[in-house]
Amino acid sequence: MGTLRVGVLGALGKVGRAVCEAVDAAEDCELVARVDAGDPLETLTESGAQAVVDFTHPDVVMDSLRFCVEHGIHAVVGTTGFDDERLDRLRGWLDGTDVGVLVAPNFSVGAVLMMRFAVEAARYYESVEILEQHHPTKADAPSGTARRTAQLVAAARREAGMSAPPDATSTALEGARGADVDGIRVHGMRIRGMVAHQEVVLGAPGETLTIRHDSLDRVSFTPGVLLALRAIATRPGLTVGLESFLDE
Amino acid sequence: MGTLRVGVLGALGKVGRAVCEAVDAAEDCELVARVDAGDPLETLTESGAQAVVDFTHPDVVMDSLRFCVEHGIHAVVGTTGFDDERLDRLRGWLDGTDVGVLVAPNFSVGAVLMMRFAVEAARYYESVEILEQHHPTKADAPSGTARRTAQLVAAARREAGMSAPPDATSTALEGARGADVDGIRVHGMRIRGMVAHQEVVLGAPGETLTIRHDSLDRVSFTPGVLLALRAIATRPGLTVGLESFLDE
Amino acid sequence: MGTLRVGVLGALGKVGRAVCEAVDAAEDCELVARVDAGDPLETLTESGAQAVVDFTHPDVVMDSLRFCVEHGIHAVVGTTGFDDERLDRLRGWLDGTDVGVLVAPNFSVGAVLMMRFAVEAARYYESVEILEQHHPTKADAPSGTARRTAQLVAAARREAGMSAPPDATSTALEGARGADVDGIRVHGMRIRGMVAHQEVVLGAPGETLTIRHDSLDRVSFTPGVLLALRAIATRPGLTVGLESFLDE
Amino acid sequence: MGTLRVGVLGALGKVGRAVCEAVDAAEDCELVARVDAGDPLETLTESGAQAVVDFTHPDVVMDSLRFCVEHGIHAVVGTTGFDDERLDRLRGWLDGTDVGVLVAPNFSVGAVLMMRFAVEAARYYESVEILEQHHPTKADAPSGTARRTAQLVAAARREAGMSAPPDATSTALEGARGADVDGIRVHGMRIRGMVAHQEVVLGAPGETLTIRHDSLDRVSFTPGVLLALRAIATRPGLTVGLESFLDE
Repeated sequence: MGTLRVGVLGALGKVGRAVCEAVDAAEDCELVARVDAGDPLETLTESGAQAVVDFTHPDVVMDSLRFCVEHGIHAVVGTTGFDDERLDRLRGWLDGTDVGVLVAPNFSVGAVLMMRFAVEAARYYESVEILEQHHPTKADAPSGTARRTAQLVAAARREAGMSAPPDATSTALEGARGADVDGIRVHGMRIRGMVAHQEVVLGAPGETLTIRHDSLDRVSFTPGVLLALRAIATRPGLTVGLESFLDE
Repeated sequence: MGTLRVGVLGALGKVGRAVCEAVDAAEDCELVARVDAGDPLETLTESGAQAVVDFTHPDVVMDSLRFCVEHGIHAVVGTTGFDDERLDRLRGWLDGTDVGVLVAPNFSVGAVLMMRFAVEAARYYESVEILEQHHPTKADAPSGTARRTAQLVAAARREAGMSAPPDATSTALEGARGADVDGIRVHGMRIRGMVAHQEVVLGAPGETLTIRHDSLDRVSFTPGVLLALRAIATRPGLTVGLESFLDE
Repeated sequence: MGTLRVGVLGALGKVGRAVCEAVDAAEDCELVARVDAGDPLETLTESGAQAVVDFTHPDVVMDSLRFCVEHGIHAVVGTTGFDDERLDRLRGWLDGTDVGVLVAPNFSVGAVLMMRFAVEAARYYESVEILEQHHPTKADAPSGTARRTAQLVAAARREAGMSAPPDATSTALEGARGADVDGIRVHGMRIRGMVAHQEVVLGAPGETLTIRHDSLDRVSFTPGVLLALRAIATRPGLTVGLESFLDE
Repeated sequence: MGTLRVGVLGALGKVGRAVCEAVDAAEDCELVARVDAGDPLETLTESGAQAVVDFTHPDVVMDSLRFCVEHGIHAVVGTTGFDDERLDRLRGWLDGTDVGVLVAPNFSVGAVLMMRFAVEAARYYESVEILEQHHPTKADAPSGTARRTAQLVAAARREAGMSAPPDATSTALEGARGADVDGIRVHGMRIRGMVAHQEVVLGAPGETLTIRHDSLDRVSFTPGVLLALRAIATRPGLTVGLESFLDE
């Protein structure tokens, strides 16, 4: 495999700069275009970019993607705000082309693996609960990743024909047993000094299995971006979520 | 120090048998009397017991203790059901004697140390939360030890003039942030395969301190009983809680 | 699926008794024969056993398995002492039959999942080390499971073309960096009060992933035995290791 | 207590800047002088500094401290390179004055508490081992803090008349049981993504107690610096180590 020519959209943003650095440092990638607000998209075609990474804004991302698809440029997208309507529009543009686009809410390989392992293990353990721990300036509880994990685990249990986890609690202080997400208990801690951490605890008679992900620094998403860049050319059409790129 | 002559009340119960075994195995103790329901308390005086361990029943414990105090026998008591009235009555009997009686709800040295360390650390950390994990047949949530820890930590924070732990949560699923015990958040997990576990998590900018106690087997209370037996002769009067015996 | 008629060999041993109890409690299994030393193997055929569980002794297991294969009875085997010669002999007997035999050194589903997840995650993390924690009466260090995990992880890294994990240690006390198993560092703790625990820690820039298995009680192997019993009829021939039974 | 007037030596260094920020943010402190290489020490006296924080270099720290002592300015010192000769010289200068000087190798309150709790708990647990986890660019193993913890724990055990922790290991791979520091086993992991973490694991029959410190960011030392600043005026003479400042 030769070197992949990569353009970065949102190159001057905090995330974009980290992406530029990572692409620059990767031996099999070449950073050929840094595009930010105000720069013409033609920079991409003129520089011969084969793929782009887009961490920009919901207001501009659709125009950028339309340009990329029309010019045969693959795209790895971390920008938020994709609802079903947008995803359908994207699918329409991609139809009949060889272009691959990945839209993913989370590029942390560790978070994706944690969710996958939790799902794989779910059918073997009658008990499962989730603990997430974050800095105390976080606005929502539980975290989006914890909710998503609970939903995936709940679905896996339903598919395996499992009933609710055992719980004989008869007297409890309000909130002591956490939040209920599709029947799975989720607990959120807010602790100064922490960044973003999650633990899935599964239990069966005599044993427990714990899968823990600690995210200490934003740089942790760049391996997922590089992994996606390396695979995107062989994945024509739209893919949602990094999960399926970790498969082979 | 010579050998301590020990009698066990409730010697045939599950806990009593474990106590007998532990006393028997301790080099500095001699098990001289095993007393159970129906046996005369005089067995204690006849065998020359210097101290007793009592894990019996609220219905009989006061009579046994009166007998012990009258005969100059020290007592280490794990039997439940001691309210203020009972403790006052005990104090009255002990007044003017050299007899020492310890009444403790929890003989786990580890649980006592965990609480003490949490209290000592509390003033240095703006954030603190408690997670307890137990088998799913437990009826109450959070556990008594977790509540007690939260109360002690809350008191230590008040004494140090600290305000509430930081928490910017603005949208939360019900229960996601745990129960509120005196302003401290407490989370209870119920997992098959677990026994009794607790974690106190403290946080300040850039660092966290975690104190975790795992209790895997009931035998874990016997060291606390032995520790109390060895000290009880030098502690005349009534002591409540194992804590103060860990001090010197 | 109807009820599976199960015989247990070594039914009076500590493990065998636990197996009998588990089979008895399983709704889809019927315990039809308890065989121990001195009992005739014909008990199995007379009781109509369709499958057996064998936790006996290396001296007798081969005779029992020969009998089972000849009489069309599937076997789930936890007895130790299987070398290549024995496995080959077993394969010879099974050749041309519909009988399924599983020989597994470890029936803990959690241990098997931990190893599988470690292998799946290995390629995404430049760093990986293993910590095992056991009771202090264990004779070998590191544990067999930890060694096996290290070997599997090392193989996965080689296959992915990865070099050695980063380590800038230039001055170290002897043993500080653990044992080297195929290039993977393995650390063994011996702590009173612990049973059998293992943690695989993987790290990449800004994030770590930890997979932990706690085995607190011997009963933890029975789910693996039941899982194997339910699948063994559809797995003719010899299978080594519970891993492949967790696949579908 | 009024506001404390503080000068910072090494104010332009990485650590010094963090100290300046912390002093500036503290309500009971006023940052009155930022001194760096080339600046005259008289800045301190002219600005009316009552105490200084010194994170500079072994080459200059002694001159600065002499100046401070002569001018009645208290000092909190994190600069390295203090051997017995230097400490003795400092004591000589301080003799007969009211000036307080603290020299501490580690200003992390959490690390100090972890060590203290490990020492307090040591006598109650027959088993104890230490695990430290750091980034893979660290040169020494085990870490200085882990060694120090092991030495303190070993001393506490000796004082309590305890023998070596139980360990029945008879066959081991080299290094599997960690390094031996005064009879205490210490294990060092090197994992990309980690910063500085340590766990002291204590065990007795049926229970374990774990004290874990996670240091994720350099800012974690500033609370220790502020705590020392607030106390230094009441501690005339030389103090070595932050420990004794956490006592009252």
